[in-house]
Amino acid sequence: MHQQMAATLDSVFDRIREIQRQARDGKAAEGCPRWPMIVLRSPKGWTGPKEVDGKKVEGFWRAHQVPVSNCRGDDGHRKILEDWMRGYDPEDLFGADGRLKPELRALAPAGERRMGANPHANGGLLRRELDVPDISDYAVDIGKRGSAMVQSTEILGHYLRDTMKRNAEAANFRIFGPDETESNRLGSVFDVTDRVWMEGIEPYDVHLSRDGRVMEVLSEHLCQGWLEGYLLTGRHGLFSCYEAFIHIIDSMFNQHAKWLKVTRELEWRKPISSLNYLLTSHVWRQDHNGFSHQDPGFVDLVANKKADIVRIYLPPDANTLLWVGDHCLRTYDRVNVIVAGKQPEPQWLSMDEAAKHCEAGIGIWHWAGNEEDATSPDLVMACAGDVPTMETLAAVDLLRRAIPELKIRTVNVVDLLALQSRDQHPHGLTDEAFDAIFTSDKPVIFAYHGYPYLIHRLTYKRTNHRNIHVRGFIEEGTTTTPFDMTVLNQLDRYHLAIEAIERVPGLKEKAKEALAAFRGKLAEHHDYVREYGEDMPEVRNWTWPAA
Amino acid sequence: MHQQMAATLDSVFDRIREIQRQARDGKAAEGCPRWPMIVLRSPKGWTGPKEVDGKKVEGFWRAHQVPVSNCRGDDGHRKILEDWMRGYDPEDLFGADGRLKPELRALAPAGERRMGANPHANGGLLRRELDVPDISDYAVDIGKRGSAMVQSTEILGHYLRDTMKRNAEAANFRIFGPDETESNRLGSVFDVTDRVWMEGIEPYDVHLSRDGRVMEVLSEHLCQGWLEGYLLTGRHGLFSCYEAFIHIIDSMFNQHAKWLKVTRELEWRKPISSLNYLLTSHVWRQDHNGFSHQDPGFVDLVANKKADIVRIYLPPDANTLLWVGDHCLRTYDRVNVIVAGKQPEPQWLSMDEAAKHCEAGIGIWHWAGNEEDATSPDLVMACAGDVPTMETLAAVDLLRRAIPELKIRTVNVVDLLALQSRDQHPHGLTDEAFDAIFTSDKPVIFAYHGYPYLIHRLTYKRTNHRNIHVRGFIEEGTTTTPFDMTVLNQLDRYHLAIEAIERVPGLKEKAKEALAAFRGKLAEHHDYVREYGEDMPEVRNWTWPAA
Repeated sequence: MHQQMAATLDSVFDRIREIQRQARDGKAAEGCPRWPMIVLRSPKGWTGPKEVDGKKVEGFWRAHQVPVSNCRGDDGHRKILEDWMRGYDPEDLFGADGRLKPELRALAPAGERRMGANPHANGGLLRRELDVPDISDYAVDIGKRGSAMVQSTEILGHYLRDTMKRNAEAANFRIFGPDETESNRLGSVFDVTDRVWMEGIEPYDVHLSRDGRVMEVLSEHLCQGWLEGYLLTGRHGLFSCYEAFIHIIDSMFNQHAKWLKVTRELEWRKPISSLNYLLTSHVWRQDHNGFSHQDPGFVDLVANKKADIVRIYLPPDANTLLWVGDHCLRTYDRVNVIVAGKQPEPQWLSMDEAAKHCEAGIGIWHWAGNEEDATSPDLVMACAGDVPTMETLAAVDLLRRAIPELKIRTVNVVDLLALQSRDQHPHGLTDEAFDAIFTSDKPVIFAYHGYPYLIHRLTYKRTNHRNIHVRGFIEEGTTTTPFDMTVLNQLDRYHLAIEAIERVPGLKEKAKEALAAFRGKLAEHHDYVREYGEDMPEVRNWTWPAA
Repeated sequence: MHQQMAATLDSVFDRIREIQRQARDGKAAEGCPRWPMIVLRSPKGWTGPKEVDGKKVEGFWRAHQVPVSNCRGDDGHRKILEDWMRGYDPEDLFGADGRLKPELRALAPAGERRMGANPHANGGLLRRELDVPDISDYAVDIGKRGSAMVQSTEILGHYLRDTMKRNAEAANFRIFGPDETESNRLGSVFDVTDRVWMEGIEPYDVHLSRDGRVMEVLSEHLCQGWLEGYLLTGRHGLFSCYEAFIHIIDSMFNQHAKWLKVTRELEWRKPISSLNYLLTSHVWRQDHNGFSHQDPGFVDLVANKKADIVRIYLPPDANTLLWVGDHCLRTYDRVNVIVAGKQPEPQWLSMDEAAKHCEAGIGIWHWAGNEEDATSPDLVMACAGDVPTMETLAAVDLLRRAIPELKIRTVNVVDLLALQSRDQHPHGLTDEAFDAIFTSDKPVIFAYHGYPYLIHRLTYKRTNHRNIHVRGFIEEGTTTTPFDMTVLNQLDRYHLAIEAIERVPGLKEKAKEALAAFRGKLAEHHDYVREYGEDMPEVRNWTWPAA
């Protein structure tokens, strides 16, 4: 058997060398070379006991885990164990001192050839920093706030294109995704590279080549596995995926996060690049698709893992997405999840503002509130995620027009885990900082991108938790207009404004007209989308007043 | 093409009939017959526009979703759309009134032969109630409370065996699992059926046969897919799985739950049997395995789905498991998740007590507390899950011995979603009922099977939420002793007792000795497991005082 195995390995190595030589001489045959692969089928429990208690063990499922049980108490079983162990001829292997004989030790390879010391199995040793451009070169000039409609992921695409270019020689950066690079608006990377493709390429094909650095295959499992292997061997990458379908690799994410947690405790393991997810085509924008494509729950799973391993970012516009994307690519030993839409959306922050906001993780958007005395608003309107941010700002606009005397504070959250207490997560705000933003006693209407429970779970220890009222995805969905999706889940501007009025003490009685108007708008919307199949013009064309 | 397709279907049907005839005549060849399968590769966007704007569309990825965009605004594109639609010769298909011509309508099949009316696509129409035995026939006689050590899933196995038997003729019940039926202690079903096996069967094989009703394959995806298909066609089933690995089918679970949510709103869709999961070999008992096998987060995902679709049960012993298993098999249009260990564990409730407890979902275990006046304990010790229940009772025992004057109430939760408010889940307790159990102001130490956040998320609306302190799996694991797993995650009896003392106002000062003793035990445990590789005898051999 050993002779056979050695001979097979020799012939396989020869074949690999031959394929490489042909490719390097430019004499490779058309199509993908057939790389050799060894299929070794060996009996389960091979060389272990053939039978125990008259029952077949070797080559059978009984060989699993512990083939002979209770060897302490059962003399017959102990004899089986002893015979088995003696079958290895320990006298030939070990000296009188119980140590492996020197001539056998000498057979083992030395240095990096040792299996446990091979740098390809400790990728951090091979890792080179990614050469990234300056994000300010890609910044969106937002002009008047809320006036520019931009596809945020497209802007990130420009940054990724140049990152790809700067690291072309190092050949250590790849983008992975289930056939969605274009669809997710990252297409400008194809200005500098292609999709890797090993089959035939036809004249009408576009952006396919043997050495493309975009890995596309309609299997989230394969994308995840490829990226894990790529990171573990010291390289860098980004996995862009439809939000709902990233659940396909939940179990693989779990295992990678566990692996990171454990290896961080092993000094000899050097840090590897973070596993970065860009979740786009998200729950709120599934115009052609439907309920099956609507699931923002991956982050709930992520938040279960060890705090220092995971980060969750919900950039509300292009400049914040640029900051977050760049930040994630430069971290290590983490799993970063970025959730950002690909549809045109209003732009809120200049690059400088975005950098400050993202570094803090959470911030008051003073320009979007009207509290004169910064310490005592009547109401906090909070949001996390691009669509909730737009709906919150529209609700603030409605409320300010209808009830000018209401003092509103607007808060936006980019770094979701900053909501947690500092003793639960390293990014968590201190209680003082949290209270300074969310107040200790005012109603907070929180519009959140995903399942609302996550916000409660993250904030339950906070002073003002009882007053935090969360709107999010409550598993109501279908194929409908973008705004109707928010209405079905009560995350839209009218529901938010109504809830604000209902939650501010005494306001309900004073703002009857506004309440009636907002409820009327919901009824109008209901009829309008059914008649015209698109959103009401005042919704579609709404812009922030400054715009 | 149509002629070719028809001819292929004819030959395929002939082949199926032939295989069936041979099998029914007892003349089937050895091994699994090769069922015919049609592989039809058709060009993407077949018969659609060949090109748009000079770019290839038919037979290419550009044919995806909307092959010709902006047909309203672009005359050239509209012409392409019109030519395409006219290619179907609508004048030949529709009359002057715009309706399909009667002679064409007559070609469609009638009644149940219509695709949408076929009962095989509306399994509820075919569904027959499962014939289940009386659970009291399988009840464990618990004797003195906590004295019997029983493998709870083995007891459920007896019930499943007889359920299998009673429905043998109806042939509408199957058990699915990744090669774990024996390992999960459900092996007694093999008294009455086998694993289904279509390959060759050797003389040394056990419990394999062509018509076995246990479906085993080491692919959670296949198990899930098979079971979904089985339920959707009107049958009944149970999927038993290692707890950590059920995440592999997260995405499939999501889609099934969404499907149930939508079909419940369609009157013509008849209810189908529930999708039942038995998650065992759970996080707290992975003696041979390690950190990779430790993940209790599936229920977090489940709790995101529509409340009326999902149920989560954590029976603490065999009789409660019997009640829950039987209940789940008799429900419909739901996803039921049962989490229960397979290792020997103390038995707490008689069958009658178990039935009352499970029906209520949550209950005070008066026998395990020492509050004389039932309205005012000093402390509530709550638990959900079998291992947390044992650790909680052991902590109560420690506290009662050390501080006899402390009035303790012990609460157990079987039906996890009963913790939610009634407006969030149909099983939710009213606030009055919840407060009557958990008090409105006393500290609650809650030992929970999974990630602790879920309990906060379920109870954040409750009066006493600020005083609920949850211990659960905090992602600390390795290959170690059973008790050490609880210590690593601070869910063990000593940590629970320490936290109780720290949380009851004024007790810390009075119970210094007990505190020191419990902390001492943790240190002792730390050294003991490292020296002996097993738990301290006083932990291993602990029993409830009544036992």
